[in-house]
Amino acid sequence: MIGKTIQELSLGDSEQIQKTISETDVYLYAGITGDLNPAHVNEEYARKTFFKTRIAHGMLTAGFISTILGNKLPGPGTIYIHQSVNFLAPVRFGDTITVKVEVEEINSEKNRVKFKTTCINQDGTTVLDGEAIVSPPKSA
Amino acid sequence: MIGKTIQELSLGDSEQIQKTISETDVYLYAGITGDLNPAHVNEEYARKTFFKTRIAHGMLTAGFISTILGNKLPGPGTIYIHQSVNFLAPVRFGDTITVKVEVEEINSEKNRVKFKTTCINQDGTTVLDGEAIVSPPKSA
Amino acid sequence: MIGKTIQELSLGDSEQIQKTISETDVYLYAGITGDLNPAHVNEEYARKTFFKTRIAHGMLTAGFISTILGNKLPGPGTIYIHQSVNFLAPVRFGDTITVKVEVEEINSEKNRVKFKTTCINQDGTTVLDGEAIVSPPKSA
Amino acid sequence: MIGKTIQELSLGDSEQIQKTISETDVYLYAGITGDLNPAHVNEEYARKTFFKTRIAHGMLTAGFISTILGNKLPGPGTIYIHQSVNFLAPVRFGDTITVKVEVEEINSEKNRVKFKTTCINQDGTTVLDGEAIVSPPKSA
Repeated sequence: MIGKTIQELSLGDSEQIQKTISETDVYLYAGITGDLNPAHVNEEYARKTFFKTRIAHGMLTAGFISTILGNKLPGPGTIYIHQSVNFLAPVRFGDTITVKVEVEEINSEKNRVKFKTTCINQDGTTVLDGEAIVSPPKSA
Repeated sequence: MIGKTIQELSLGDSEQIQKTISETDVYLYAGITGDLNPAHVNEEYARKTFFKTRIAHGMLTAGFISTILGNKLPGPGTIYIHQSVNFLAPVRFGDTITVKVEVEEINSEKNRVKFKTTCINQDGTTVLDGEAIVSPPKSA
Repeated sequence: MIGKTIQELSLGDSEQIQKTISETDVYLYAGITGDLNPAHVNEEYARKTFFKTRIAHGMLTAGFISTILGNKLPGPGTIYIHQSVNFLAPVRFGDTITVKVEVEEINSEKNRVKFKTTCINQDGTTVLDGEAIVSPPKSA
Repeated sequence: MIGKTIQELSLGDSEQIQKTISETDVYLYAGITGDLNPAHVNEEYARKTFFKTRIAHGMLTAGFISTILGNKLPGPGTIYIHQSVNFLAPVRFGDTITVKVEVEEINSEKNRVKFKTTCINQDGTTVLDGEAIVSPPKSA
């Protein structure tokens, strides 16, 4: 149960996951964070907004980046140091999001790796991008 | 149900919320994101890590920043544009986190506001910091 | 709060429950088990499968059998010993499942009862069958 | 996003996952299935039972088997045909369960694979065993 060390990573290595974001996801996330902003949980309100319907929390979508970093690339043992995210387009209930991370820079001396992180919807629209910095697990 | 416009905001304005992060929060968040990294849901594994016990997902804690921005300062109608976060210390189950946002820069021309965002635990340790950029609601 | 003893059970005794399986049920169950198989949580992927849409986890449906055994027949105090299940047809979001258990064999000496267990959808299709062996509660 | 075909599987191939079973898991599962048997959600009642405390639903633990079969071995595209489970010992809140599947029989003609399925707690006690039959994905 240990992920890839920095020696096992190369520029361009990538992994991705996909999930259809459901009302359930958004409502549970609202409950955990207390973010019951009407844009997320009030359809009557949301209908009158620019987006015309309830949308998922931006940070909910961003959370899937960590799912890949911590479980697949580099995987268990990874220390998460930094994440930046730009919210580019809304995620509506029922959208299927592809979350992708790709190795962009490797600093072996400091044991740090920078990843390009992107979330794209079923229509090919990038809804979120940004970058992550992690410290991959060291060999036992 | 509308938040503060940029005219109603001043440098240094701040708001905060607090929550005790529970096992329930972490397990539900793991379920939503699929991030069942052993560091979060496997106590036997976690006991052997540097942190000695299961810890919350960093992005779970970061999610509380949006709760304040979208509900209190500036509040409903705010568009979330950017968030950066530095993960500085672990959040353990039962830790009580104070999440604070503070107006750092105001750009009236572009209708953009930069906030300093900080999460501090019950011992005064900063577990997370970073900054947010939002577009406050315009007056109706 | 005690169920039926073996003396109170007869061959052919049966009980049933019904529930409409929702997206919420499937998403929560995915979160608990970590089974975010795309067949369950990715509509884009599922559309291209034989079933054309997301389906519920087979073991989620099977779990309702225990609900009857432990709460109605025989009821509280029952020890669950064995369950076998055959997955015969998919359960789609919105399907209403009737779960039925029926006494098939009684072994008073060993205090064991075998039940025929069946799950049927709203169209009369058997989606799951199998058998359960339990030890009913003994009288106080 | 496709798992292993029958040609890629060998006798003895195995995979495992681990999770600490929380009160949250049990309460959510109780809510989904409606199995609010006092043995699972009533500590006052449970204290007087043979197990002295609330225990997890047997079928909740069994559900993790499908997590491995559908996501790791064989993985996405697998059709679940049959599962048998023997409930051998209780799972208490806070127990860390290792769930393991191992290829036991391969029938290439019928495209069916039988797996030995086992759940073991942190003390090495087998809490559940049984077998699964699946149809691995066919190559595209």
